Amino acid sequence: MKAYAMLKIGSTGWIEKDYPTCGPLDAIVKPIALAPCTSDVHTVWAGAIGDRHNLTLGHEGVGEVVEVGSLVQDFKPGDKVIVPAITPDWNSLEAQAGYSMHSHGMLAGWKYSNIKDGMFSEFFHVNDADGNLALIPDGIDPGDATMFSDMVPTGFHGVELADVHFGDVVAVIGIGPVGLMAVAGAALRGASRLFAVGSRPACSKVAVEYGATDIINYREGDIVEQILKKNGKPVDRVIIAGGDNDTFAQAIRILKPGGSIGNVNYLGEGEFIKIPRVDWGVGMGHKAINGGLMPGGRLRMEKLSAMMVHGRLDTSKLVTHRFHGFDKIEEALNMMRNKQPDLIKPVVYLD
Amino acid sequence: MKAYAMLKIGSTGWIEKDYPTCGPLDAIVKPIALAPCTSDVHTVWAGAIGDRHNLTLGHEGVGEVVEVGSLVQDFKPGDKVIVPAITPDWNSLEAQAGYSMHSHGMLAGWKYSNIKDGMFSEFFHVNDADGNLALIPDGIDPGDATMFSDMVPTGFHGVELADVHFGDVVAVIGIGPVGLMAVAGAALRGASRLFAVGSRPACSKVAVEYGATDIINYREGDIVEQILKKNGKPVDRVIIAGGDNDTFAQAIRILKPGGSIGNVNYLGEGEFIKIPRVDWGVGMGHKAINGGLMPGGRLRMEKLSAMMVHGRLDTSKLVTHRFHGFDKIEEALNMMRNKQPDLIKPVVYLD
Amino acid sequence: MKAYAMLKIGSTGWIEKDYPTCGPLDAIVKPIALAPCTSDVHTVWAGAIGDRHNLTLGHEGVGEVVEVGSLVQDFKPGDKVIVPAITPDWNSLEAQAGYSMHSHGMLAGWKYSNIKDGMFSEFFHVNDADGNLALIPDGIDPGDATMFSDMVPTGFHGVELADVHFGDVVAVIGIGPVGLMAVAGAALRGASRLFAVGSRPACSKVAVEYGATDIINYREGDIVEQILKKNGKPVDRVIIAGGDNDTFAQAIRILKPGGSIGNVNYLGEGEFIKIPRVDWGVGMGHKAINGGLMPGGRLRMEKLSAMMVHGRLDTSKLVTHRFHGFDKIEEALNMMRNKQPDLIKPVVYLD
Amino acid sequence: MKAYAMLKIGSTGWIEKDYPTCGPLDAIVKPIALAPCTSDVHTVWAGAIGDRHNLTLGHEGVGEVVEVGSLVQDFKPGDKVIVPAITPDWNSLEAQAGYSMHSHGMLAGWKYSNIKDGMFSEFFHVNDADGNLALIPDGIDPGDATMFSDMVPTGFHGVELADVHFGDVVAVIGIGPVGLMAVAGAALRGASRLFAVGSRPACSKVAVEYGATDIINYREGDIVEQILKKNGKPVDRVIIAGGDNDTFAQAIRILKPGGSIGNVNYLGEGEFIKIPRVDWGVGMGHKAINGGLMPGGRLRMEKLSAMMVHGRLDTSKLVTHRFHGFDKIEEALNMMRNKQPDLIKPVVYLD
Repeated sequence: MKAYAMLKIGSTGWIEKDYPTCGPLDAIVKPIALAPCTSDVHTVWAGAIGDRHNLTLGHEGVGEVVEVGSLVQDFKPGDKVIVPAITPDWNSLEAQAGYSMHSHGMLAGWKYSNIKDGMFSEFFHVNDADGNLALIPDGIDPGDATMFSDMVPTGFHGVELADVHFGDVVAVIGIGPVGLMAVAGAALRGASRLFAVGSRPACSKVAVEYGATDIINYREGDIVEQILKKNGKPVDRVIIAGGDNDTFAQAIRILKPGGSIGNVNYLGEGEFIKIPRVDWGVGMGHKAINGGLMPGGRLRMEKLSAMMVHGRLDTSKLVTHRFHGFDKIEEALNMMRNKQPDLIKPVVYLD
Repeated sequence: MKAYAMLKIGSTGWIEKDYPTCGPLDAIVKPIALAPCTSDVHTVWAGAIGDRHNLTLGHEGVGEVVEVGSLVQDFKPGDKVIVPAITPDWNSLEAQAGYSMHSHGMLAGWKYSNIKDGMFSEFFHVNDADGNLALIPDGIDPGDATMFSDMVPTGFHGVELADVHFGDVVAVIGIGPVGLMAVAGAALRGASRLFAVGSRPACSKVAVEYGATDIINYREGDIVEQILKKNGKPVDRVIIAGGDNDTFAQAIRILKPGGSIGNVNYLGEGEFIKIPRVDWGVGMGHKAINGGLMPGGRLRMEKLSAMMVHGRLDTSKLVTHRFHGFDKIEEALNMMRNKQPDLIKPVVYLD
Repeated sequence: MKAYAMLKIGSTGWIEKDYPTCGPLDAIVKPIALAPCTSDVHTVWAGAIGDRHNLTLGHEGVGEVVEVGSLVQDFKPGDKVIVPAITPDWNSLEAQAGYSMHSHGMLAGWKYSNIKDGMFSEFFHVNDADGNLALIPDGIDPGDATMFSDMVPTGFHGVELADVHFGDVVAVIGIGPVGLMAVAGAALRGASRLFAVGSRPACSKVAVEYGATDIINYREGDIVEQILKKNGKPVDRVIIAGGDNDTFAQAIRILKPGGSIGNVNYLGEGEFIKIPRVDWGVGMGHKAINGGLMPGGRLRMEKLSAMMVHGRLDTSKLVTHRFHGFDKIEEALNMMRNKQPDLIKPVVYLD
Repeated sequence: MKAYAMLKIGSTGWIEKDYPTCGPLDAIVKPIALAPCTSDVHTVWAGAIGDRHNLTLGHEGVGEVVEVGSLVQDFKPGDKVIVPAITPDWNSLEAQAGYSMHSHGMLAGWKYSNIKDGMFSEFFHVNDADGNLALIPDGIDPGDATMFSDMVPTGFHGVELADVHFGDVVAVIGIGPVGLMAVAGAALRGASRLFAVGSRPACSKVAVEYGATDIINYREGDIVEQILKKNGKPVDRVIIAGGDNDTFAQAIRILKPGGSIGNVNYLGEGEFIKIPRVDWGVGMGHKAINGGLMPGGRLRMEKLSAMMVHGRLDTSKLVTHRFHGFDKIEEALNMMRNKQPDLIKPVVYLD
């Protein structure tokens, strides 16, 4: 079968792959809609997770179940499902400890296009179908539903890591699609004032629609100064969904003692994140630094997509470009690489 | 000075009171807008907290500071302030333990119209002005601002006690003004489906505006059956903002194992709340039962009112009746007692 | 194969059972040591969970793996293992939500001698071997190790549900083997003063060894009065590990506002637990009522037994009677039923 | 009156100070026993918090109340009290948010020998006596009681920040007196294996008595390698109570995904703490980094000292040197500066 893969660092292309084997707990899914991710770009062109050869790309998608293993109870061929980017081994010690995304190793719940073939394929494999699939709720467009694989749970996890409470002043640094979901999530956790740091007008516009009250453009001056000046005091919570290692120093500087940072940005390069000693209260300032991979699995998909069903969230604002036809995957991925001004997220429908 | 007081159980009237004494940490406030509360009704006509003689009523109000004590640093005469219903002693052991509303005794952070004269007076006393007052944010109408004294913090605390997470299905039982704020708060903590249990059309309409997805009318059948049927499974969280002791059995029955109940309803009579043994998992069902008085104080007022400033919440929907003139207090209180169909909450402006 | 079973309510006996079938994720275990539980007594003679026919009893045991399914990775025949009383389905929605003990239904993680045959058998079945078994640490006697199936995790979970913090004054009501583990666990979570409520001298003696500072004998007067008098104020936390439905009213009365109750007692009869309205702060006293089934599974067994390995806990004090020979199961079970004065817990070694 | 002060960076001496003024909420205390702290050494000789002139040193002490303000209710002259190093303004917004140690500014709950005169004086001032003093429990030696001002609450807060659970494997880096209290606290929160990293035999011996199971000597090789080799896997929690900025990289490397670091070490120099990007899971490893100043105030003193009353903790092991006479303060402080091999902590009794 046909798959779109990373051939090696810096190179992608169409290859032939064997149809995947379905174990007793597993499912095989035929994609209905797929979305490329900035992570795919990092993986291929920055070599961020090391070299890979002929690894099928893609970890955001919805599809139709075509085969299930003998022990699968809740899904059957024909079911239309959301597949999360993170598909844990639920009986692992890490999952039992509440960190399923690190099942059997740090980040190892992230399997697609990392430690196994991804979703950009005619068919793809899902481990633990009962534990990791969720039905697409009625009335949600498959393209919009792909946003639940990664963008929504990652952005919302930033909000959880930053521990937003009623009335908190929140800053979200980075307003690509993940950051925009952090903005939406922060508003949905009860933020009052909500600073969104970015520069692209397309993103800023949607950030306001998702609940940002102030757009901070880093091209217009130091974001620390801008936020402290506007807010008149440090903020309660910071969500990092963009930037680089140096963003943490800015986050520490705008954060109050007793506040929390929630990082969901994949830090692609550099040896160290540097925490400024004095601004961090010489080690005693109670400025918590959290960073974590999104929780995946079935329950998370069901609960987050239910928020769209009940009108709390509209992921369609993220999808600025919609393609049709499997062969458009390449164009969509290149779009993520080039990030034209009006792009937030492209989706490819396989019809 | 003139005050509207509980004379004894079952009886209210206008009386003369001495102008209050301002201690070194205190403030004296002249009311700008006041609101009567169902609690006032309970206190007077049900004798719910025992007898009181010539106790000034009222614990919801905003006003102008006219005097401050020598140790007060952050407020001065002329400041327009929100005064919370709960004004803790912040250095008490209970406050240090995180339960300021119980400072120096269970519920003893609730001072107004309970253990000291309330706000329905030409002037009233505020203990610990720096710790318990908050400026009315620019642009918020004083009448709307009175809702922050009790209705908003109480309803939102129900949400906190029920521990609502992203995507949770939530049931709010009771949609008077506190219940409506619980509905708004649950939507602002990320509820997906949101059942609101009530019967009055005026309240149901506003409940939907605040985020309820399903109105359950208890006059149309057992609420347990209605909710379980509509939801297809137990709900994740229940907020109790109305009903009576028997409401807890219903709440337990609609709640999933691992779920939580947050009660903010003042239980006025009866000896026992009865928890059904089998539905509570023979003691082992992980259905947490929480109930608590709202947190008061300055920070809470500042954070919750900031949510209105930034467009997350609009308390004006609660205020269905607006009176002008101090002498209208009596009429407004009687309104709360009689609860005509179109009433949610009356407010009296003192201009 | 031979098994000791509940024949029907009020009746037990030896029966023949088929050797269990080992699914791909499962293991078959041959017991090395077994312990009867008060729950077995309730199940048989009180009919507490309804009637059962020819259901093998027993849910506390350690044994040797004799067979594993094709997908089992971490265990092999010959391994000596602790088997928890609660063996969840780890990929269930409930487990994903953090409540694995209620996987696929309230209390349904409790399978042995409830919804499937128990351990009092020549061989018994374990679902999800990788997720639910733990190696017996070197140097722990198999009889002492049986205490990790239920007594230790249940007692310690009471401590977690009561949320004990450094310096808390804690009351443990009931000092059978579970209550004694609650005493040990409370001391190991940082309790200061620790009231243990019981009457049997054998238990009281061990309670003190596990960390109780005051023994309250309910035969010597009302426990509420005794504890309030001795402590001079309400306690911070209450763990219920004995008594009946009425014990909750006592617990509420000795508990401070802002305190928590952790119930791990199986409530065998009566329709309602009754919470006294006024003592519960008319619904607003912040006296949290929690009750839950122990968390089971592999990680829990590994972590708790490591506490014994490193000298924090000594379960051997619980085991007052040690029998040898499978046929002694009946005698041991009857002992639990009759509770002679010097009994805490009997264990049967199968050698 | 006589006081022992920092004259300027690098210089200390005896000076004359005015007797302090007692405000309405305050108390004046005459010391009974005092202890110098490594922080005093940092403050004077490293200039760690900037220059200070004629600032009385000392923030660990117990004494006798000699005067109280007019609003003080719970203390009176003659009371023997523990005075915490951290004395918050309890009605501040920060305290209301749960971070009293940062009341009115980051670290600003730390007043003694930082922003006001310390305790090494014939008399010293206590702000908010009701909120910040605690009676010395009967039977605790005053010298041992000085350990509750800072050593116990700081060490135990490290345990809280690291969030130790039953059965966790914990590493404590640094076993001076604070680290030793972190060891004791970790054992009292339910740690199983407990690595203590240090080199001085006097400290190692006491660490084992407080519950350490393994002493890791950094002079015998890289501590990351030693711990990972001995434990066979990463640890669950790390408490940092010594070392420098580089210690965090070690802590990250020995920590599991889903684990937490609790720092209570005052980081005296250097611009940045450096977090290794890859070991931190490229930002997504769920290795939480917490650091905070100890909570002070009355409740904390009462609860922690109650642990000694009830036999959970014995601070006398920390006090290796006991002096008598106020004039011995200088010798004791120099001891902390020079750290002779057999020193853990000196105490000066003022009789």
